[in-house]
Amino acid sequence: MIWSRKSLLSIEELSCDEIIYILEKAKLIKDEGCKNGPIVSSLSGKRIINLFMEPSTRTRVAFEVAAKSLGADIISITGDASSLTKGETLKDTAMNVQALGADAIVIRHSSPGSPLFLSRMVDVPIINAGDGAHEHPSQALLDIFTLREKLGDLRDKKITILGDILFSRVARSNLWGLLKLGAIVTLAGPSTLVPREFEELGAKVTHNPNDALEGADAVMLLRIQHERQQASHFPSLGEYANVFGLGKEALSKMKENAIILHPGPLNRGVEIDSEIADSSRSVILEQVSNGIAVRMAILHQCISLES
Amino acid sequence: MIWSRKSLLSIEELSCDEIIYILEKAKLIKDEGCKNGPIVSSLSGKRIINLFMEPSTRTRVAFEVAAKSLGADIISITGDASSLTKGETLKDTAMNVQALGADAIVIRHSSPGSPLFLSRMVDVPIINAGDGAHEHPSQALLDIFTLREKLGDLRDKKITILGDILFSRVARSNLWGLLKLGAIVTLAGPSTLVPREFEELGAKVTHNPNDALEGADAVMLLRIQHERQQASHFPSLGEYANVFGLGKEALSKMKENAIILHPGPLNRGVEIDSEIADSSRSVILEQVSNGIAVRMAILHQCISLES
Amino acid sequence: MIWSRKSLLSIEELSCDEIIYILEKAKLIKDEGCKNGPIVSSLSGKRIINLFMEPSTRTRVAFEVAAKSLGADIISITGDASSLTKGETLKDTAMNVQALGADAIVIRHSSPGSPLFLSRMVDVPIINAGDGAHEHPSQALLDIFTLREKLGDLRDKKITILGDILFSRVARSNLWGLLKLGAIVTLAGPSTLVPREFEELGAKVTHNPNDALEGADAVMLLRIQHERQQASHFPSLGEYANVFGLGKEALSKMKENAIILHPGPLNRGVEIDSEIADSSRSVILEQVSNGIAVRMAILHQCISLES
Repeated sequence: MIWSRKSLLSIEELSCDEIIYILEKAKLIKDEGCKNGPIVSSLSGKRIINLFMEPSTRTRVAFEVAAKSLGADIISITGDASSLTKGETLKDTAMNVQALGADAIVIRHSSPGSPLFLSRMVDVPIINAGDGAHEHPSQALLDIFTLREKLGDLRDKKITILGDILFSRVARSNLWGLLKLGAIVTLAGPSTLVPREFEELGAKVTHNPNDALEGADAVMLLRIQHERQQASHFPSLGEYANVFGLGKEALSKMKENAIILHPGPLNRGVEIDSEIADSSRSVILEQVSNGIAVRMAILHQCISLES
Repeated sequence: MIWSRKSLLSIEELSCDEIIYILEKAKLIKDEGCKNGPIVSSLSGKRIINLFMEPSTRTRVAFEVAAKSLGADIISITGDASSLTKGETLKDTAMNVQALGADAIVIRHSSPGSPLFLSRMVDVPIINAGDGAHEHPSQALLDIFTLREKLGDLRDKKITILGDILFSRVARSNLWGLLKLGAIVTLAGPSTLVPREFEELGAKVTHNPNDALEGADAVMLLRIQHERQQASHFPSLGEYANVFGLGKEALSKMKENAIILHPGPLNRGVEIDSEIADSSRSVILEQVSNGIAVRMAILHQCISLES
Repeated sequence: MIWSRKSLLSIEELSCDEIIYILEKAKLIKDEGCKNGPIVSSLSGKRIINLFMEPSTRTRVAFEVAAKSLGADIISITGDASSLTKGETLKDTAMNVQALGADAIVIRHSSPGSPLFLSRMVDVPIINAGDGAHEHPSQALLDIFTLREKLGDLRDKKITILGDILFSRVARSNLWGLLKLGAIVTLAGPSTLVPREFEELGAKVTHNPNDALEGADAVMLLRIQHERQQASHFPSLGEYANVFGLGKEALSKMKENAIILHPGPLNRGVEIDSEIADSSRSVILEQVSNGIAVRMAILHQCISLES
């Protein structure tokens, strides 16, 4: 058994072998169709609590689907932190959730490190579903699952992550994972959103959109959260789209069969041309589907270890 | 097999035979008690997504109950369209829901025609749970189910729909269905809410409350959404109640055993006298119960055709 | 059979024997581990509606967990009363919920007496999950369950309830229950929050923190809802904490093995010193766990009687 972790807190802490182990488990689940095979209903009688202290629909629902596909009961507790805790500490909230008989807690929280903190406080597995700008490990695992499915072994593959790197937990988790698997990772975007400091982690950094995609095997686009950043980090959405949006010319710089990923929701015409988003190069919807198998693997692995 | 539709988008598109087919299926389910019989658990392992992009509690919960009674998993995604899509197109939202492994999507949306649009974009059955002022087919089917249960064959039966016809998807869906089944339909209410144009569809139109109920076998009251219309479409709630509210005198104009329907929630003292709402003539709560059997029939029919 | 009630509306209406009967049933369930034994899945096919017309997360989720542990389907309908009813009467809302096929309704409502009112209007069991400042019987039963587990027979045991008694349905329900079981109950707190009138019910009343805990077997702390009361009922949170907060000195006045209860969420440093909250004297998390077994017993008892 390569994986002996009770919790999934970050990609940074995983070894290359652990990442591959969980992805191969997800592959077995996907091959069975997610609705058949021995793993389905294998968590019957288990109780999972989705503790989402930051608004989210997609990740929450994906974990609900994954848990139900395993036969587990899942109860989602949603709201902002203040309404859920009413002044209670995060530790107390988690201890309460555990006392309800949870066999695992999936947590999204705005504070980086909160899943790690909780994993030291409670006895049940903690699955990090996004902690501030720190990590989003289940998203990175489904991204890497999709990349491996399309590209095979990622060693020496050129993967570009393009967009708002600075604030992105998706970028951070993917960076760790891709580097561990031997990929060559380029981080690209406006200089305000892609600081040079990331070079210290082993990534290439460029602010030149031409360089960013040259010879790439895959590009992972990040959502421009224009509600938040437009004013300060680049002049306008139109300008971002012109310079960094994935259009036909940019696409032509990539390898012939290069693929395009995006964690959603998609801003058509901003990060990507609408036509390209719908082309055979785009694997965006496969990411969503793969997310079910990957999260089933995560939940099954962490919870069945405990039993 | 009379019904070969994958989706339920509107009553307008259904034939008389299709309407009767689905209602007879619902009758079989109701006769088994909704909690027994071969149909219960027949959708075990199926996954239904309730995508409610307009606030609603009643219809959403009714579909949840129906889906669970069939043994299916149902996950409700609720919120206003903007928070759910974050700038994403409706098509992308639906493609994402499908990619989560949905076997059917139940959708409520403020835009007329959105279920039809989606049915062309995604592969899974789409059930329209209300699209703007266009249609609300499951409500009309449960209304017609209840009418047939009480009145038998609806051919030449006189059915009056009374209230806010102009903005009502319930009125529109019922009008199509009742006309297809051969009923004589009168639309009644203030002239501002019941335009003459409906005569072109085959209904009688009257703004005279005395004429509206004369000899009717049934009256279907619509909720006055006073939050929205009071100011502009009639002088006051009290005045509406005086002229169009169903009181004892108005009731006496109808046939002796005429029945009263209302889709809820009820404004007692506005659309209807409180005493009459609680009388044996009212079938309002039976409508709610019948809604479970009817929605079970809809979900089972659309989803099992696909399998 | 000692318990023949269809509904659980209040502790006030229960006899001592009924309280003990339901607690012993909960004990059997707890001993089986809540996830095993003959009671698990015994409500399979039953449908419970959680009708929460006042915001709540903890109690709602606890009932969801309890219902699912019994194999029942549970659907939560949440929101404030106005959005749920849209002008409909409470009776109509409940009749509608019953018409959806509910086998029991768990209700939280801001109006004292609303569960009693509904129990006269609908045929299915009504479980009171908190009605205004009136009662919160499932909370009191889990509190008393925990007290009996730790202290044995409660006859002549000295139990102090400390804090905001005036507005607390938890205090009211516990007071009735503890007196029926023969305990000696002291109500303590600032005079503005603990009126002398409670002496008429059989409790001792004190505003002196030294007297409050002297020789007590247990103290039940209540949450200071500082959003609401700080301004008017005591000078400041700090002052409340200084005078009535449970610190080491106050603890030393109690019996050697005295225990500490709190319904949560906890304001560390206000009602209780943080260190004491985490000590072996605190049974706060056991209350949460016991709440599952107690609510399973309540739901099973009320619903299976009906079948």
